[in-house]
Amino acid sequence: MIGLYLDELEIGRIIPLGSHHFTRDAIVDFARTYDPQPFHLDEKAGRRGPFGVLSASGWHTAAGWMKCYVATNQAAEAKLRAAGKTPAPLGPSPGFENLVWHKPVKPGDTITYTLTVTGKRALASRPGWGLLFSHSTGVNQDGDEVFAFDGKVMTPVRTSSG
Amino acid sequence: MIGLYLDELEIGRIIPLGSHHFTRDAIVDFARTYDPQPFHLDEKAGRRGPFGVLSASGWHTAAGWMKCYVATNQAAEAKLRAAGKTPAPLGPSPGFENLVWHKPVKPGDTITYTLTVTGKRALASRPGWGLLFSHSTGVNQDGDEVFAFDGKVMTPVRTSSG
Repeated sequence: MIGLYLDELEIGRIIPLGSHHFTRDAIVDFARTYDPQPFHLDEKAGRRGPFGVLSASGWHTAAGWMKCYVATNQAAEAKLRAAGKTPAPLGPSPGFENLVWHKPVKPGDTITYTLTVTGKRALASRPGWGLLFSHSTGVNQDGDEVFAFDGKVMTPVRTSSG
Repeated sequence: MIGLYLDELEIGRIIPLGSHHFTRDAIVDFARTYDPQPFHLDEKAGRRGPFGVLSASGWHTAAGWMKCYVATNQAAEAKLRAAGKTPAPLGPSPGFENLVWHKPVKPGDTITYTLTVTGKRALASRPGWGLLFSHSTGVNQDGDEVFAFDGKVMTPVRTSSG
């Protein structure tokens, strides 16, 4: 993650992932394609729906996290390369746990995502690789946490890979 | 879920959610917008990437589940309405657990999603509502499970709401 090896990512490290702005058009476009429940598609149905407001699909909020996560990683890797270093590659994620949508994401909201490293372990099955555990949150412009989950990602170990 | 009240959804019930076909264009479009890692964007980077093949963003696989889930619910509700019945509304999901991406989803894959009811309980905090627990899977055309997670969704209780 962020071009670093498992050894270099200390538990407790906070990695700001940046923000994603949710426009009405993007909310409706995503919903039309992947989550066409009425309260994700128009204001009137939103007012009558479970949140009392037009809101983004929860999967859209998650996709916004992914966008910020990839951008943060790519920027960090580019910075290491510019400094003449070889970034650790970002590995795939086997999955995650405990995803929570606390509050609706509304048109015009800007969600700021933050990841905290919560644990790590070497993978006996994949020498040279380990799993990095993390907790991510999404907070809106009013300071309300709207989204959280516990992620994990395969991360190379420096001592055996470089 | 599927227009039924919590009372009517027995544990162990299997709900087929239908299939989603992943074209190369849709895989690349989704990735460009939400997950622009090279191995989701072109074949050459896919071959060099962690899966050895161009593959869909894991969030795209999840969004395909959502699309099938909403379509299945809307079809079931329409059928109940056509029979003169009032479907139970589909409630929001507070989140989910244990999401796993077992295998890559490749261009041309068709993923068939299935949900199994695994538990339910009334919500003391929300009279008339309960939580329905479920396990969902996504299986490709070769019979390989590529995706799974444990979901929960707020579901009305008939005895107090209708």
